[in-house]
Amino acid sequence: MIHAFVKKGCFQDSVSLMLISRKLSDTPEVDEVSVMMGTPANKLLIAATGFWAPIFDTATANDICVAIKSESQNNLITVKIGTELDAALNNLSESQGTSKNRLQKARRWQSALDKLPDANVVLISIAGEYVAELSNLALDNHKNVMIFSDNVTLEDEIKLKQKARANGLIVMGPDCGTSMIAGTPLAFANVLPHGNIGIIGASGTGIQELASQIALLDHGITHALGLGGRDLTAEVGGISALSALNMLANDPETQVITFVSKPPDAAVRQIILTAMQAIAKPIVALFLGSYSKDGDVDKNIYLANTLDQAARIACQLSNIERHRTDLLAANQLPNIPLSNKISGLYTGGTLAAEMALLLASKLKIKLDPQHDQGVMLNADGHKIIDLGDDFYTMGKPHPMIDPTTRTQQILALASQQQIGVLLVDLVIGYGAEADPASSLAAAVIDLRRARPDYPIAVIATITGTVQDPQNRDLQQNILKHAGIIIAHNLPEAAHLAVSLINLRDPPLNLPQKSDLLKGVKVINAGLRRFADDLHASGSTVVHYQWAPIAGGNLVLQNLLKKLV
Amino acid sequence: MIHAFVKKGCFQDSVSLMLISRKLSDTPEVDEVSVMMGTPANKLLIAATGFWAPIFDTATANDICVAIKSESQNNLITVKIGTELDAALNNLSESQGTSKNRLQKARRWQSALDKLPDANVVLISIAGEYVAELSNLALDNHKNVMIFSDNVTLEDEIKLKQKARANGLIVMGPDCGTSMIAGTPLAFANVLPHGNIGIIGASGTGIQELASQIALLDHGITHALGLGGRDLTAEVGGISALSALNMLANDPETQVITFVSKPPDAAVRQIILTAMQAIAKPIVALFLGSYSKDGDVDKNIYLANTLDQAARIACQLSNIERHRTDLLAANQLPNIPLSNKISGLYTGGTLAAEMALLLASKLKIKLDPQHDQGVMLNADGHKIIDLGDDFYTMGKPHPMIDPTTRTQQILALASQQQIGVLLVDLVIGYGAEADPASSLAAAVIDLRRARPDYPIAVIATITGTVQDPQNRDLQQNILKHAGIIIAHNLPEAAHLAVSLINLRDPPLNLPQKSDLLKGVKVINAGLRRFADDLHASGSTVVHYQWAPIAGGNLVLQNLLKKLV
Repeated sequence: MIHAFVKKGCFQDSVSLMLISRKLSDTPEVDEVSVMMGTPANKLLIAATGFWAPIFDTATANDICVAIKSESQNNLITVKIGTELDAALNNLSESQGTSKNRLQKARRWQSALDKLPDANVVLISIAGEYVAELSNLALDNHKNVMIFSDNVTLEDEIKLKQKARANGLIVMGPDCGTSMIAGTPLAFANVLPHGNIGIIGASGTGIQELASQIALLDHGITHALGLGGRDLTAEVGGISALSALNMLANDPETQVITFVSKPPDAAVRQIILTAMQAIAKPIVALFLGSYSKDGDVDKNIYLANTLDQAARIACQLSNIERHRTDLLAANQLPNIPLSNKISGLYTGGTLAAEMALLLASKLKIKLDPQHDQGVMLNADGHKIIDLGDDFYTMGKPHPMIDPTTRTQQILALASQQQIGVLLVDLVIGYGAEADPASSLAAAVIDLRRARPDYPIAVIATITGTVQDPQNRDLQQNILKHAGIIIAHNLPEAAHLAVSLINLRDPPLNLPQKSDLLKGVKVINAGLRRFADDLHASGSTVVHYQWAPIAGGNLVLQNLLKKLV
Repeated sequence: MIHAFVKKGCFQDSVSLMLISRKLSDTPEVDEVSVMMGTPANKLLIAATGFWAPIFDTATANDICVAIKSESQNNLITVKIGTELDAALNNLSESQGTSKNRLQKARRWQSALDKLPDANVVLISIAGEYVAELSNLALDNHKNVMIFSDNVTLEDEIKLKQKARANGLIVMGPDCGTSMIAGTPLAFANVLPHGNIGIIGASGTGIQELASQIALLDHGITHALGLGGRDLTAEVGGISALSALNMLANDPETQVITFVSKPPDAAVRQIILTAMQAIAKPIVALFLGSYSKDGDVDKNIYLANTLDQAARIACQLSNIERHRTDLLAANQLPNIPLSNKISGLYTGGTLAAEMALLLASKLKIKLDPQHDQGVMLNADGHKIIDLGDDFYTMGKPHPMIDPTTRTQQILALASQQQIGVLLVDLVIGYGAEADPASSLAAAVIDLRRARPDYPIAVIATITGTVQDPQNRDLQQNILKHAGIIIAHNLPEAAHLAVSLINLRDPPLNLPQKSDLLKGVKVINAGLRRFADDLHASGSTVVHYQWAPIAGGNLVLQNLLKKLV
C-alpha cells in the first residue's frame, strides 16, 4: 500500500530529491520511496506511476510530496521515513555550506542581480512550465540565457529567441545540455585544452564527444555553444545557430568552426550554409544522418559523417590555420597572386606520386601521364618531381643518400618567383643520410636569401620514427628552426599548400554584438549541482534559489503580478 | 679540360665513391671530380656527362676511373687528387674496421656461405647487369633474395621469381628499396614498434610512410615485405605479392595485412584480390591512383586512397583484432550464432543516434523512424536505446546523473540470451555522476554472473577528458578491469560489435613454406652501408665484397665458367 505525507515549504531541486529517493528506498520494510516537489507535472507523474495519495492535492510546487510503497500496513513507516528525510535534507544543506570559499546564493531574483550585477548568462534548469517567465526576466535584464530544462513550448522558444536576437543576446536551449564558454562549464561540460576550434551544436553529447575527440587528438577548443535540439527546425529557423555563428565568426581566437546537429529542415539548412559561406573561416559541418561523400567540400564548408571524423577534419584544419599564422608571423606567406604556383621536390617516389594525385584532385588539373624525368605532375605552373627517378640517379646516389640533386633543384627556385610553395619530403631511417634535415634546412635558407622579395612557404612531411638513428623529433626540430612547416601527412601538406595559393576573403568584421566570449558570469537557477560545478571550476556564479512564486499557484501569481 | 687516371684493382661501392667525388670536388683549382668504377654502364655515363678520357678504355669494372674537370692545364693536379683519393679510401677502410665487434666480410661467395651457412636472404645492390647471375646463385643455394638494384631486365625478373616460387622462396625486387623482416632492416628501413600489422608493398617509400604513420598512431608492425615496382604488372603477374600474402597469412603474429602498390594490371588485381579474400584476416589495400569510395569494403578487404588513411584503417583493424583476442582470452566472446544480436544502451542521445546510423549501415537494416521510448534502432533483433529520452527521464534524473535506469536495463539482458554484444557510453565531466564507471562496471559484472552460460562482449566509448573531475584514464581503467572493452570512438565500437556477431572463416592453414619471418640472416652484396646498418642494428650479416668476375669482362667470364 501507499503511505504518504507532504513536507511544506521546503524547495529542493529534483536531482537532489531523486538521490534522496534512491537512498530512502533502501530502508527495510519499504519497496520504494518517491520524493518529489508538488509541481503540477510531478503530480501527474506521481499518479501515473502508482504513488498517488489524496494528501498530495494539498501540496504546492514548494512542498515535498513523499510516497512510500510498502507491504506494511503500519503507518509508523511515515514517521521513520520522515526522520530519514529530514536527516538527508540536513546533510544536503550542511554539505553545501562547508566549503571555505562559499557559493554565493540568493533567494530572490533581484538579490541575485545585486550580488552579480555584471552576470551575462542565466543558466536555467527549473521545471519547464516556469522557464519562459524566468527567461523573459533574464532577457529583459540583458542577460543571455541557457535553458537546460525541457518541456518548454515551441511558441515560448520562438518568442524568447526572437527577443534575444533583437537585443544582441543568445538563448541556448531549451533542452540544451552543454555549453563551454571561455572555459566556463555550463551544465554537462568537460574540461578541455584551450585551442583554436570553436564548436556549435544542437546536441549536448554531440558537442561533448566532438570536444573529447578533439582533445584526444591533442587539440583544443575556444568555445562550445549549445543551441537546443529544436533550433534548426522550420519553426525556430536556426535563430540561435545564426547568432552563434556570428559570435564565433567574430572571435579572433576561433580559427576553425565545427557545427553538429541532426539534419536541419531543408530551408534552414540552406540559410545556415549561406551564413557559413559568408564566414572567412573553415567550417566543419556534421548533419548527423544526412550522408556526405567523404571529403565533400562546399567552399569553406567540410562535410563530415561521424563525430570522430568531424573532429579529425577540424584538427587538420586547425593545424593548417596555425601553420598559416606561423608563416604570416615569419614573413613567409607567399605573395599572392604573384607567387601562386606549387613546386614539389620529393626523394620518395610513392610520396611524389601521392602528392601529385592529391594536388591534381584539389586543383582540378591533370597528372602527367609520362612521368618523364620523374615529373609526376606538370600543369598550370604546378610541378611535382620524383628525384629518385632513374633520370636523376644514373651514376649518382639516390637523393635519400645524397642531397646534392635536391639542393640544386631547390636553389634553382631562386629565379622561379612564381613558385610560392615548396613541398618536400624527408625520409630517415637505415640507408638514408645521417642528417638529411640539416642539408635540407641549409638549402631552404639559401633559397630564401636568394629571393628576398619573394617569400616562399616550405612544407615538409617526415617519413620515419623517433627510434630511427636520425630521430624523427630531432630532424623535425632542425626543419622547424629553418622555418619549414611540418605537416603530419601528405593530405595535410597538400591541403595547406593549396590553401596558401588561394586569396582569402577578408573577414567580414561584423559587429560583435555579444560580450559573452570574453568571460562568463552566471546566475544559476535550478539544479544546485550546476552552481556547485561552476563554483568548483573557479567560475563566477550566484545560485539563485528559485522557487515557484506563490507556491506555484498560477491564479495567485497573476494576482500578485497585478498588485506590483 | 679533363685530367684523368685509372686506379687499378680496387673495387668500391658506388655510394662510397659518390661521397668521395663530392669531397674531392671541393679541392681548390678543381671544378668537379668524378670517381666511378669502370663498369660498362658507368663508362657510358662518364662519356655522356663530359668526363670522358681515352685512358678509361683500359679500365675494367674492378678499376676506379677518376676524371678531374679543371681550368688548370697543369697535370700535377692528378697527383694531388690521386693522393687525396688514396687518403679517402684509406679512411673508408679504417672507419669500417674500427668497430670492436667487426662486420664479417668475405671476398668470395663460397666463403660468405661458409661464414653464414644458415643465411636466408641475400641482399643485392650491385650493378644491375650482374644481378641475375648472383640472384640465381643465391636461389640455387636456397636463399631468399632481395634486389635493391634496378636495371634488371623484365625477363630476368620473371625467371628469378618463377624459380623462387618453385622452391618456396621469395624474390623481393628488383628495385626494392625497403623490407623490414623480424626487426631486421633491409636497405632503406625504419626502426618500428612491434605490433600486429604486416605490410606488403610494391613501393619503397610507400612502405616506409605507411609504417611511420602506423608508428605515429601508437601501433606497430610485424614485417614489411617489398616486392619491387614491376611485380604487379601483367608480365610478372604478382608472383612475389602472392608469396608475401601467403607468408603473412600464415604468420600468427600478423593479425592485419596492409598492401600498397600502384594500380595493378586488371587481371593481376583480380588474382590478388581473390588471394586476399581467401585469407581469414582483415586486409587494407591501397592501390595508389585508383580512387575508392571512402569506407569501401570488399569482404575482408578495406580499400584506402592515401597512405595515412590506409594506416588509420589498419590501426583501427589492429585494435579490433586485439580486442577480439582479449575477449577470447577472457571467455567473453559471444557464442555465435546463439547470441548474435547487439544491444546498445546509451545515456547520450547523439551517441545513440550515431551508433544507430553506423549499425544500420553496416548491418543493412533500417533505423527506427519513430524514436518511441528512445528506441533509435530496432530491427532484426538489434536494438539501440537512448536512455536520455523523455520516456526515461520524466520525474527521474538524467542517466548521466543517476545510473539506475541503465543498470536495470543492463540486468534485464540476463534473460535475453540472444544478445551477444552490449554497447554502452560513459559520459564524464561536470554535471555527470561522480564515478559512472564503477556503477557501469558493477552492472556488467552482475549481468555476466546472471548468465554464466552466455558470454557477452561489452564495448564502451568514453566521452570526456583526462582533465575532467572523474579523469578519463581512471574511469577507463575501472571499465577495463571489469572486462569492458574500450573503443576509441563510435565507428570503432560499431565495427567491433559487428565483427563479433559474424562467424569467421577458419584460417586456411596453408603450409608455411618460408622460414624467413622467424628470423633473418643476411649475406649483403653491394652497398657496404647496408651491411653496416644491418650490423649496427644487431642483425646477423656477412658482407660479401662482391666484385665482377674477370674484371667484368664477359668473354673472359664465359671462358672461366667453361674451365670450371
